[in-house]
Amino acid sequence: MNLNNKIKKAICVMSGGMDSTLSAYMMKSEGYEIIGVHFNYDQRTQSKELSCFENICEAMGVENKYVLDLSFFKQLGASALTDHSIEVPIGGIEDGVPVTYVPFRNGIFLSMAAAIAEKEGASVISIGVVEEDSSGYPDCREEYITSMQQSINLGTKDETKIEIRMPLVHLKKSQIVQKALDLEVPLSLTWSCYKNEQKACGVCDSCRLRLNGFKLAKAQDPIEYD
Amino acid sequence: MNLNNKIKKAICVMSGGMDSTLSAYMMKSEGYEIIGVHFNYDQRTQSKELSCFENICEAMGVENKYVLDLSFFKQLGASALTDHSIEVPIGGIEDGVPVTYVPFRNGIFLSMAAAIAEKEGASVISIGVVEEDSSGYPDCREEYITSMQQSINLGTKDETKIEIRMPLVHLKKSQIVQKALDLEVPLSLTWSCYKNEQKACGVCDSCRLRLNGFKLAKAQDPIEYD
Repeated sequence: MNLNNKIKKAICVMSGGMDSTLSAYMMKSEGYEIIGVHFNYDQRTQSKELSCFENICEAMGVENKYVLDLSFFKQLGASALTDHSIEVPIGGIEDGVPVTYVPFRNGIFLSMAAAIAEKEGASVISIGVVEEDSSGYPDCREEYITSMQQSINLGTKDETKIEIRMPLVHLKKSQIVQKALDLEVPLSLTWSCYKNEQKACGVCDSCRLRLNGFKLAKAQDPIEYD
Repeated sequence: MNLNNKIKKAICVMSGGMDSTLSAYMMKSEGYEIIGVHFNYDQRTQSKELSCFENICEAMGVENKYVLDLSFFKQLGASALTDHSIEVPIGGIEDGVPVTYVPFRNGIFLSMAAAIAEKEGASVISIGVVEEDSSGYPDCREEYITSMQQSINLGTKDETKIEIRMPLVHLKKSQIVQKALDLEVPLSLTWSCYKNEQKACGVCDSCRLRLNGFKLAKAQDPIEYD
């Protein structure tokens, strides 16, 4: 067997939102076999995100998928996304870490993705974090992800070598929209809104960032808004 | 309120085994309020470990406890501890990473402990990893834990400052036994064996390490062996 001909695998953490979907498409365009990883963690929009993930995987031809049920964050509470008694803010993005922050969520997601990568023999994990033009979550910063990559390599077998790719980390939302259009990402299948309603609310932080991206990219968001 | 008088909290990852129990007792002896964290992950000895954890917490007077159900490792498989079709080796400790290794288990445990620490305002996480005189798991190395501490601090709120304590990392098993006896740790309540039988098997890696520690410490292990 010629190891050089082996298809490289990428573990793609995919929420069903625009950013992680684009990140997965970027890995696909580089020739990786995509292994999709999705988390159900009792977030408000759990069923919507899951069906988006399934539809996106179908559109991408992803066959190897992990859908992981994580009761931990509900047990922990402490975030407007998992404690449904805390309101999702709709007044616009403010300074500081918002109440939608879920403590060390990406740390837990990346740790599980690392375990899957080690089992599957994948060399890459992709995550759709955005540092600028974002909600201000500390676990979306490049410095953190880079450090986590080192930790993962130190804490797994010596032969396991994992690179964490975060192709959007320094992009503005308008650049993300543009790149998604260029790569023909099926944005109509994605869901970004924090609220669990029929149509996207248009006023939570996540909708505001997305809509502003489309506006600056001079493009039309194909999903419906209230 | 005088913040200096606030009792410091330590999140103690506790399996019910000798090492993590001693680590928690060491934190208690330093004056920390202990918050016990235990994981059910479909490991072979899940029910035994859980009852040991509960009994140890009662003996320690720990009231704040998190028992976390994690189906992930069963879904992942890839270890003799979670895939019950893989035999636990009993022939003695060999070089390399053994089949009982669970991919990046401590990474996932520490990430969840970090989320709990951030919510609870705890300044310390303790973990009972042992580097020398151990099973050779990569996620038990000091270099990894130190890196993970940095990752956790970069990936949580700026005001969150977490130190990961691993007081046993450079101890031999005989020193661990001696320290546990000095601190009057109720070793009769702990369980280390990888097998799920009435009495500890005495021949899996974990039993061998424990028994050798008692032998070199010239002490009697209070638990029963087959």
